[in-house]
Amino acid sequence: MSELTLDQAQTIVKDALAHARGGKFNALAIVVLDARGALKASAAEDGTSLMRWKVAFGKAYGAVAWGAGSKRIEKLALDRPHFFGAVTHLADGGILPVGGGVLIRDKDNRIIGAVGVSGDTSDNDELAASTGIKAAGLIADGG
Amino acid sequence: MSELTLDQAQTIVKDALAHARGGKFNALAIVVLDARGALKASAAEDGTSLMRWKVAFGKAYGAVAWGAGSKRIEKLALDRPHFFGAVTHLADGGILPVGGGVLIRDKDNRIIGAVGVSGDTSDNDELAASTGIKAAGLIADGG
Amino acid sequence: MSELTLDQAQTIVKDALAHARGGKFNALAIVVLDARGALKASAAEDGTSLMRWKVAFGKAYGAVAWGAGSKRIEKLALDRPHFFGAVTHLADGGILPVGGGVLIRDKDNRIIGAVGVSGDTSDNDELAASTGIKAAGLIADGG
Amino acid sequence: MSELTLDQAQTIVKDALAHARGGKFNALAIVVLDARGALKASAAEDGTSLMRWKVAFGKAYGAVAWGAGSKRIEKLALDRPHFFGAVTHLADGGILPVGGGVLIRDKDNRIIGAVGVSGDTSDNDELAASTGIKAAGLIADGG
Repeated sequence: MSELTLDQAQTIVKDALAHARGGKFNALAIVVLDARGALKASAAEDGTSLMRWKVAFGKAYGAVAWGAGSKRIEKLALDRPHFFGAVTHLADGGILPVGGGVLIRDKDNRIIGAVGVSGDTSDNDELAASTGIKAAGLIADGG
Repeated sequence: MSELTLDQAQTIVKDALAHARGGKFNALAIVVLDARGALKASAAEDGTSLMRWKVAFGKAYGAVAWGAGSKRIEKLALDRPHFFGAVTHLADGGILPVGGGVLIRDKDNRIIGAVGVSGDTSDNDELAASTGIKAAGLIADGG
Repeated sequence: MSELTLDQAQTIVKDALAHARGGKFNALAIVVLDARGALKASAAEDGTSLMRWKVAFGKAYGAVAWGAGSKRIEKLALDRPHFFGAVTHLADGGILPVGGGVLIRDKDNRIIGAVGVSGDTSDNDELAASTGIKAAGLIADGG
Repeated sequence: MSELTLDQAQTIVKDALAHARGGKFNALAIVVLDARGALKASAAEDGTSLMRWKVAFGKAYGAVAWGAGSKRIEKLALDRPHFFGAVTHLADGGILPVGGGVLIRDKDNRIIGAVGVSGDTSDNDELAASTGIKAAGLIADGG
């Protein structure tokens, strides 16, 4: 697989937060993971609550772990809560099943990482993540 | 107990994957455990997501741990979620309560291990597992 | 407490990495936590190993958790391993007892966060962290 | 990064075990992980003890996590046990600090996975792993 660079990850963070400020979103936490589920870059805006970054992390981690944007994982969690609960148990970094965890795909459509955003509505969280990913010249897959 | 041999386990993996390729299933992970819940053989096809092998492991582990195919464990999880949740908490390798975790029984009907498959629908996952077990001359018990 | 701002945290990351590149350090991971132990900003340079960011996190988390730079925590770990082992057991984000976890203090000497760096020697890791903290106009306390 | 294929991983397992049988090694467990630390292929020979596969897994996981063969990790563990203990605490799949965890590198020297072998002396374990990796046309790095 091609690798997500730090330069791309920092562009994602910067543009996602610029989008959020432009839209007067609530304070966000944003986490960018590579294809291994390892932390690549992150930022938590001033005023975010104690666990906010963990929610952002879990949205991104679930997307990479499952190979699907967190919006699709939400459907699974709602349809089959017994299965979803068991999977969550196995996930090192947690799995957060609501919109805002967006897969990063390269031009060959391969998964090279994921972005998790938390703080505003899940639609706005997802929009911020997708905007950042596109600004880095990559493909956003929200699920 | 009679013991699952590596030769049998490798036959299970080979024939399960051959069945999956013949049926154009999604990329699968397959895990074969012995009667103690110890890893005997495994394979993850190219393109499987980060956690796929853990889900396959959890289906097989749950089957051995509980002495029942994972399809039967799903009924338990749906009927008594409070109990299932507590049991999951105790399970070293997780318990995944959906089809695709299939007990391996010898000719005397004794449990000698389990196969977990994940990647396609749970019905197809189970079918791949059962096909492999039968190819090794053993009895498949999906629950 | 006064609060570490995202602007300060991003300055720390940027200047720590600039220092590392100037000194031709190995690829680094850097994690900035606020006074609560919550992730504020981070970056992992290209080529860092799978667990590198966790080690950086654990150096910073230990510093905040213990109220001491990780170099001082190393002395504790060496002097009283039984105690250190038990404390580690309680630490959500781990405690890494080697240099490179540096407290961030404001002008009134209050702890407002910590920086963890991992990838080069622990002396160089600490130097990168301290350089970033000073560049943000704050006080670095390596232990 | 280039990706370790299932075909390569199965070649590694087959040739490592053939080498072990030729040398009349004790019964071995062998685990092949990809660059993400995810299980790619494995085999446990008949007669291996209950935890043998976990030791093999931990040798491979430590190598990928740390970006170094497990023989080099052993030196770290002996020199700085307080640090090694803390890192182990953070490792999802465990880190086993003795020879027999061997990095798999591609022709560009990039880490694409690791092999862990356990069952005989650590020198023999490492030899089996390296033999398998070379048979797959890849570079073995034991630390």
